[in-house]
This record gives sequence, C-alpha cells and structure tokens, in this order.
Amino acid sequence: MINAKSEVLIRQKLTLVALGKAPADRILRVGRLLDTATRTWAENQEIVIKGDRIAYVGPAGSWPGTADAIVDRPSLMAIPGLGEVHKHIESSHLTPEWEAALVMPRGNTWTCEASHEFSNVRGSRTLEFWMAARQHGSPLKIFPLPGSAVPPTAYEHGGGWFGYDEQKAFLKDSLMVAGLDEVMDWPAVWNPENASHARLWGMIEATFEARGVVEGHAAGLRDLPTINAFAAAGLASDHEAWTAEEFWDKLSHGLFMELRPHSMPDVIKGLLQRGLSDWSQIAFATDDRSASETLQKGATDYNVRLAIQSGLAPEIAIQCVTINPARHMRLTPWVGSIAPGRFADIVLLSDLENFEIAEVWADGRQVSEGKRYILDVPQIDWPEWARNTVQIGGELTAADFAIEAPAGRTTMMAAVLRPFHWEDSFLTYELPVEEGRVQRDTGRNITKFAIVDRFSGKKSLSKMFWAGTGPRTPDCALASSLAHDKHNVWCVGSSDEAMAMAVNALAEIGGGWALVRDNKVVATVRYEVAGLMSSRSAEDLDADMQRLYAEGDKIDWMFEPSSSPRWWAGFPERLAFATLTCAPWRWVLVAPSDDVPQGLVNVATGETHPIVW
Amino acid sequence: MINAKSEVLIRQKLTLVALGKAPADRILRVGRLLDTATRTWAENQEIVIKGDRIAYVGPAGSWPGTADAIVDRPSLMAIPGLGEVHKHIESSHLTPEWEAALVMPRGNTWTCEASHEFSNVRGSRTLEFWMAARQHGSPLKIFPLPGSAVPPTAYEHGGGWFGYDEQKAFLKDSLMVAGLDEVMDWPAVWNPENASHARLWGMIEATFEARGVVEGHAAGLRDLPTINAFAAAGLASDHEAWTAEEFWDKLSHGLFMELRPHSMPDVIKGLLQRGLSDWSQIAFATDDRSASETLQKGATDYNVRLAIQSGLAPEIAIQCVTINPARHMRLTPWVGSIAPGRFADIVLLSDLENFEIAEVWADGRQVSEGKRYILDVPQIDWPEWARNTVQIGGELTAADFAIEAPAGRTTMMAAVLRPFHWEDSFLTYELPVEEGRVQRDTGRNITKFAIVDRFSGKKSLSKMFWAGTGPRTPDCALASSLAHDKHNVWCVGSSDEAMAMAVNALAEIGGGWALVRDNKVVATVRYEVAGLMSSRSAEDLDADMQRLYAEGDKIDWMFEPSSSPRWWAGFPERLAFATLTCAPWRWVLVAPSDDVPQGLVNVATGETHPIVW
Repeated sequence: MINAKSEVLIRQKLTLVALGKAPADRILRVGRLLDTATRTWAENQEIVIKGDRIAYVGPAGSWPGTADAIVDRPSLMAIPGLGEVHKHIESSHLTPEWEAALVMPRGNTWTCEASHEFSNVRGSRTLEFWMAARQHGSPLKIFPLPGSAVPPTAYEHGGGWFGYDEQKAFLKDSLMVAGLDEVMDWPAVWNPENASHARLWGMIEATFEARGVVEGHAAGLRDLPTINAFAAAGLASDHEAWTAEEFWDKLSHGLFMELRPHSMPDVIKGLLQRGLSDWSQIAFATDDRSASETLQKGATDYNVRLAIQSGLAPEIAIQCVTINPARHMRLTPWVGSIAPGRFADIVLLSDLENFEIAEVWADGRQVSEGKRYILDVPQIDWPEWARNTVQIGGELTAADFAIEAPAGRTTMMAAVLRPFHWEDSFLTYELPVEEGRVQRDTGRNITKFAIVDRFSGKKSLSKMFWAGTGPRTPDCALASSLAHDKHNVWCVGSSDEAMAMAVNALAEIGGGWALVRDNKVVATVRYEVAGLMSSRSAEDLDADMQRLYAEGDKIDWMFEPSSSPRWWAGFPERLAFATLTCAPWRWVLVAPSDDVPQGLVNVATGETHPIVW
Repeated sequence: MINAKSEVLIRQKLTLVALGKAPADRILRVGRLLDTATRTWAENQEIVIKGDRIAYVGPAGSWPGTADAIVDRPSLMAIPGLGEVHKHIESSHLTPEWEAALVMPRGNTWTCEASHEFSNVRGSRTLEFWMAARQHGSPLKIFPLPGSAVPPTAYEHGGGWFGYDEQKAFLKDSLMVAGLDEVMDWPAVWNPENASHARLWGMIEATFEARGVVEGHAAGLRDLPTINAFAAAGLASDHEAWTAEEFWDKLSHGLFMELRPHSMPDVIKGLLQRGLSDWSQIAFATDDRSASETLQKGATDYNVRLAIQSGLAPEIAIQCVTINPARHMRLTPWVGSIAPGRFADIVLLSDLENFEIAEVWADGRQVSEGKRYILDVPQIDWPEWARNTVQIGGELTAADFAIEAPAGRTTMMAAVLRPFHWEDSFLTYELPVEEGRVQRDTGRNITKFAIVDRFSGKKSLSKMFWAGTGPRTPDCALASSLAHDKHNVWCVGSSDEAMAMAVNALAEIGGGWALVRDNKVVATVRYEVAGLMSSRSAEDLDADMQRLYAEGDKIDWMFEPSSSPRWWAGFPERLAFATLTCAPWRWVLVAPSDDVPQGLVNVATGETHPIVW
C-alpha cells in the first residue's frame, strides 16, 4: 500500500542505500536495461533493491554499498513491470490474488482497476476488496479507480451508489486511488435534464478536488462536436476508438488514448501511415479479458506482442504499457520505469522482437519463471459481504418468466431487442398468444430474455423478447450473474421452465454460469465472490469454463448479425456485455423499479415502453 | 482561479457549446494549428471560445453552433500558450500584474511559480500574494508551488516557516497549487541528523498526500550514487544540469529534466548527438531572469528560440514549454494544448523557425500585438504586509560594520569567502589590525561583506571579509535586499561608513538596490514589494536599473574567478545569488542567531566558526 507517511520512511531509507551508507537486500545484474524516459538501452546494468523498491540503477559494479546477494542475468533484458491503464480484473473472473498468479508471469505488475463491476455489487466495500490481496502479500499493485457507473444509469439501483461524498472519501482514504474510472453515461454528462447528471458531476468535482484523474469512455462518440464536448467536459481519456481516424481525432483533441487489442492492428498501422512519431499520449488497455483467454493469448504481454506485430517499435510499445500510462495516471513515483524509488517490479525478456518473458520480478524478488508463478498464492478467506451476493428472494418458477396477454388476444405486438442493437428504436414484432401468454417465435429467431434483480431479494425480474440469440433447442436456458455493468442475473431460454431452473441453479452457487439442457442443469461455473470472480487458479476456472462450453456446444444457438462486429455465432458468452447501459446503447432491459416497472427503458432519455401491447 | 466547484459549472457549459447547443463568444480561425499531443500541424482550423476557455477545435466551419464574432488570422500559426515549469517571478523584480504585461507578449501565459523568495519574506501571505493579480483580472495563470526552502536551511530564520501543516493547508486551499517547489537542501534530505530533515520531509509527506508534484534542485549533484539517492528520495525533477552527460544521467534515472538557457546549447547538441528521440520528460525553465534581461532577450520565447538555434525541431521545442511541463505538473486539464476545456491561451506565430510571435491570446481574447501588451494593467494597491518588509530596526552606523580585534593584536587571522566558493573549507588570510579593528586588504582583493537581518527589526547583522568582489574604489558600497534565498540585506563596501549609508538608504526605499560612491548615495532602485519586486512597468524599472549600472560603472570593482562560470567582472549584480545557502554551497554567511552568533556556518553540517581569530 502506498501512503504518504510510510512513503517518507521508505524513501529516507532508500536514499541512504543509494548513497551506499546503508546495505541493500540484493542486486540484480542484467545484460541490458531499457530506460523508458529516453527510450534507450544501457548495457550491463545493476539494479539495487531494498525492500520492495529500487534504490539504485547503474553500470554493474558502480554502486558503492553492500548487499546480501547478487543475482546475475547477463543474457536477459530488463524492462519495467507492465501496467494496465484500464482493466476490469473482475472480467478475469479471478479474485485479485489469483489474478496476480495469472498475469504477473505475463509481465503485468500493476493495474489501474476499473472498479464499477465489483462496486455495483458491494459499493461500500470497494477499497477493502481491492486492497485485501496486497495486504495478504500479493505482489500485484492494484490502483482502484472507483467507477462512475455505480449505478450505470439513473434507471438502475443495486449494490452501490457513488456520488460526490463517496468519491471524496475514496480519494482521501488511499493514495492507491488514482482517480475516477471511465465516465460512460454520456447522456448524463452533457444533458442537465438527465437524472444522473448531478451524481456524475459530483464525482468529477470530488476527483478534481483531490487532483485525481478523470477517465472517460467515449464508445460510439465519433463526430467532432461530440469528441470536443467530451474533452471539454474534463474527461481525460478514451479506450473505445475503433479506427485510426477516430483514434486520431480523439488523441488530437486532448484525450489520452488507450488502445485495445480488438482494433490495435488497424489503429497502429493507420497511425504509422499518418506519420505519428510521438506516442507519449497513448497506452494499451486490456479492459476485459477472461482468464481462459489470458491463458490462451497472454495478458499485457499479448498487447505488446500484438503492437510489435502491427509494426510498432518494441521500445515504443513498451512505453505504452509503462511510462505513458504511469504518467497519465500520475503514478510515476511508483511505477513505469526502472528508476530509484519505484517498486522493484521488473520484467526480464529473453527476446525483444517476440517479446518473450523469461522471468518477472516484483517487490524486489523473482515471482515467475517462464509462465509459472513461483510464489505461494495467499489464502484469503473472503468474507460474507464478498461471497453472499446473489439474493433473488427464493426459488423462481416458470410462471415468473411468463409474459401475459389480455384475454381474447391471439397475437400481440412486442418490443424486441437484439444484442448490441445500437439503434434509436427497438424492433417491433407481432407474436402469437397461446393460453393467455405471448410466445417465442423460434422460426423468426425470437426468444425470451430476462433480468433478475439479485440485490433486492424480492423475486423481482423483468423479461421481454429478444432476437438473434439464445437456444433454438427446446428446454434450454443459460443464466449468468455477469451482466455488465450492473451485474444482475440475465437469463435467455427456450422455455420458461428452463429459465427458472437455470436462475435457481445460479443462485445456489452464488453466481457464475448455469446451463440447462433438456430441463436439466448440465453445467455450472461458480463465481462465488461477488458473483463475478472465483477464488481459485486460472487453470481450475478454465477447466470449468471448458466444460460449460462443451455442454453449450450441444445446443443450437440462434444467431443474427448485430450492430457490433464483436457479436458472433455459437455459445453466447458475450451476452454478458449485451446488458450494458452505457453509450451508445439506447433501449435496454433493466431490473424493474418504480420508475421503470417493466424494465424496458431508453437510457438516453428515461422514456419507458411496455414490452408487449 | 481553478477550483473544483466552478470547474464543474464551466465544463458543463463548455460541453453544450461544443455540441452547438449553446452559443460561443468568438471563433478564432488560423492558418495552421499545432497539436502538441501528436506533434502535428492541422491546416485552416477554428478555435471556438466560451469565456476564458476553449470549447471546440476543428476545421474552419465545422462547428455547428453560433458565435458573436469570428476573428480571422489565415496567415498565422496557432500554438498553445507557453508555460514556465520553474520560474521565480520575483527575479523579474516585477509584481505579478506587471510580469504579465512583460512576459505575455513573449508567449508566456502560465507559470509554475517557485515561491520561496516571497515566502521567505511573508510566508503566511504566499497564496494571497500570488492570486491577487489574477483576481484583479490579469490573464497570466500563476500556479504557485510553495518553496521547500522556507527557510533555506535550519541556520536561518525570518519571514516564513513551512512544514507539514503549512504545505497541507496550501494544497487544500487551492487547486492552483501544483506541489512543492525545488527541494534544494540536499544535506537535510539525506542526513537524518540535519536540523531541517523533519521539516523538509514533512512538506514532502503533505505533498504526496495531496497528489502534488515534488520538485527538486540537484545543483552540483553529479555522481551516480547521489543522483540515484536524489531520485529515490522522491524528488521528481531537476533544473541544475550543466552538461549533456549530467543531464542524461539524471533524465535516465527517473528525473523530469528542466533545461535552462545557460547550458541549453551544449545540452541539446549533446542529447541530439546521443540520438535522443523522446523528449517527453524534458521542459525548458527560466528560473531567474530580470525584467531588464527579458526586455533584451525575451521570455519563454527566448528559451524556445535558443533551443531551435541549438538544433532542436521547433515542434519538439514547443512541446518542451507546453504539453511536457503541463503533464509533469499534472495541469493538462487546463494548459499545454489547444484542446477543449483548456484555457483559451494561444500564441500566434508569424514565423516558426525564428519563432516570431505576432499576437498572444489569453482567457479567450487578444492580449498583445507584437511585443506590445494591449490590455490595461490592473491597479493593485499592494497592502502593508507586502510593502513594509525591510525592518532593520533603525539607522546603522559605521561602528555596526566594524570587526574588532583584541587589544594588542597587530594582525588577525580571518575566515574569508568568495562568491560561489564551492569548496569544503573557507579561505584563511592574515589581515592587518588598525585602531583595534581588523582591516580590509584591497591589494589582495579582500573587502568586507555583511548580512543585515531585515526581519527581526533588531539592528542585527553579521559581517566578515570576502575576496574577489566589491568596490576597490574607496568610500563605496553596494547594498541590496535581493539575497537569495532568504532575502536579508547584503552589503559590500570599501568603507564601513559607506556600507552603513548604503543599507540605511536601502531601508528607506523599502528594499531594492542602493549604491554609495564618495560617501554619497548615487543610485537607488526600489523593490517596494517584499523588497524583491516593484509595481511598475518593466521599462520603468529597467530605466532605474540602467542608471544604477551607469553609476556602478564609475567604480572599480574587484574581481577574481570563482568556482562558478557565472561569476564575472564588473558591477557585482550576481552577488544576489552568492548568498544562497543551498547545495553545493558549504560555508556561508547568514544573519546572526543564537546558534550562529557571528553568522558564519557550514550549512551541510551546522558547524560554526569565528570570522576572525
């Protein structure tokens, strides 16, 4: 933990060590060392370590003091520990101590945690949760940025509510808090009439007050007036640009740009074609990546590798995950360079062009060998407030998912959404009525989707018809407590019975995934912490996920293209993101409330609409 | 003034203007515009202004809203207002409203004010003083950094004392306060035994706590262990590197480097020779420059011009006075780029390579035409606490400056200093005694130097013999209240009578300069505000200074080379800096105190010594 008082004591001691007036713990000697300030390599360097910090850097043998041990790595290249400028660790679905074990061997030693996932579940425990792993000795530095999206829009309520007072307290409580995470409810920012306007600006005010960074999220905001307005609002960054042109327009209007892998090759090639020679306002961001995907592709190392493969010089790519994000987040005293005073977090490469990591050091000691994490993962007994978070209020039945029709109607009109339906209006379908209930229409790719409130414990749910997703196979349903960004429970199913069964199974394991086929629960994956994460190894979790996918493959899933290139056929895992209420979404389904009784609401305007009529 | 509450209101309004939903005040259209993030030019741009801020930037005609006026400058190039990352405005000897009139036509629209000069005189009024000009409508943005050197060392006491509580209050009081200015008492930083250790680290702690920037001053610290120790201490910058090698060593050890003109040509050439391609951790700094020198050479524009002449690309040179210092000082939401939300402070160039400034805009309106400031300078009635600061306690006489010898002695040994005598020991001379008093020895370049306490009002002064400075001509003396960094009164003279006369004349005008020749006061220059600054135009002040120099030219001044290349023959104006007690100085003369009764003290160790024995 960083706090001003202990920082003084640490730095007083480091000063004496650097001068050779006090002993060090160990010296790490390397063949080459990258200075991220000058973007140059120095040969045969030594890094003198005291506690978890660097005390001295210079040519091997130049430090005048004495150390307990010298470790020689003459064939390896040292670069600073890699940083994530914007990541939801929750999307790994690992608790922070297990996240560390997964990502640290892949170079990632510090993370600016975009914390609206956990915060929407247990807002008041945000700092306590993110600090716990490090307090138990985990070497990953997590810098939590409390989410502005708590709740995501004014039309949702649940496990957290952050305004001026809450953000002020967070920033006062800990220097690890770097600022305010991704302001994403753009209608609430610009429009004074929006019901979240005052709450959001309260958080921005508190962040300015404490000299914190106000992060942005400008998905779908591409026209110049809106980009200008976004920057004028004081939102300092974006991580949602998809093309080189959009990226350039945002970069050149004062936004610090965070580039994600999905658009990295195109954007990097486009920027190089335009002759960009100054990359200091750019970082790479992972945002969301599951443990399974990280096992397959990599963590921050993957982002760097992809950048190099896209044509960027390795040294610049490394700056985009070290000094650039550290400077943007005002964390340069602690991370971003191999320099005195910083954490002794060092990545040792055996190959630069292929970005092959041989070892990672953190807190001044070796933590990995190849992809293997060599420290013990601390055993954390996550408390009740973290584990017992899926409270739906009892067993649901098929009747809870039924959509009733007035007597005498044989068809009804239905408001229909699709995953990533980024259009101003919902779709409208005429659907059959049987036994007084409006029916799915599998032939036209129409099924039923529900959001179950998991915070109130009042058996409260909303449901409507959706197109282009969910099981075509009868008697199947998929439920998950991973429903960005509010993380209620969503469920999609080909029968109401299967949907009830899936949600009940999910509640029983405390969140995660539940899959029903032939009216049987065939696979579950527990995310027992906050319904978002599991306290076990990436490999264990991945094995469960693979079992889920294998069972999912036995089901015929509906599909039709949507507004997003990131919506694809097969097991609809990405439905977890189809419940996002942030821009550029319009009509979304949320849990019922007094203001939005059936759950269907336009989050830009607050307008509601019946789900059938 | 920037404060979080008004910032919210301003940005809410700007957002609507950018979207074209609210009107703007005016549009400035330019032929080219430099984006400092991408380091690229865009042609035919418009800058839409609301109040004192930028609401929109884009191709001419692209903004969808309406404005009261359009100003066309098709032949000019727009770059952001230039920033000073480290400057003592006090060294201009102009009060801030007159500083603005001098430097703004020369491109300088924002200044990180290194405030230990004023603070050593009236510490408790620091923020009030630096905010006053802007509160009266001056468009120069001054970001005060309270000085760590208040007092400079533990062996001096006067008009200010800053520790943890004071720094905490400054940072809480105003978002204009960016951090802690140049920590320069290196012996007090590293050595736990030093009497200023706790005070300095208290200020550092308070700055960390408030997420402020801790600035450094590493003069003479050139060996790798000390550079490492300096960085390890958490001091984030230096502006004292004299060679490319020293500059590189500091830059590559995590220090943000601030480059001053005296070493700029050599350093830039050296860095280019080494192939430095990333200049993002470098800014240019003026530090100290008198109004007279600024009139002659320029302000920030001079620094940029010199960098271009030294071989740096103009666009990179501009980054070194815009985005780079803004980022280092965590001021990017307000300055450093022509981007929405920032102050509408814009420099319009007619020639890039020669860096010719045609107009400067600030707070959204034109403030200069060529070198002419076209706004009215606000009339500020500086209060008593600012004006009445030279309190020596009554008229001094020749006897106050006499150095007594014990009865019967015909010679005595004397401890002798020289200006910029950066050696471990003082010099030792045997000097004649006449009528019971130790005498100067003009033949050996030995004269007398005194420090008069101007804070206690107790007629308290110290004196000793100095070499290589002061008048050789009999009956002459020069006195000044400009005595870095404590700003007591110093006086050097060829007779004790002349010295008393000079100091008395200086006290009468409230500080500044007083020159005595032939036992007559032949020139004075008043610095009536804090004994450091004058509330009048640069031209008026310069005229007075020229009269002083002309009278000074009639005197034969002693000279001998010293440890500093910046000590030269002629009128000894630089004696104002020869009283500095910061590193790498050793033995210095300070005003008497209980701990240092004769004023001669080694500020690295606290050792004292008699001035004669």
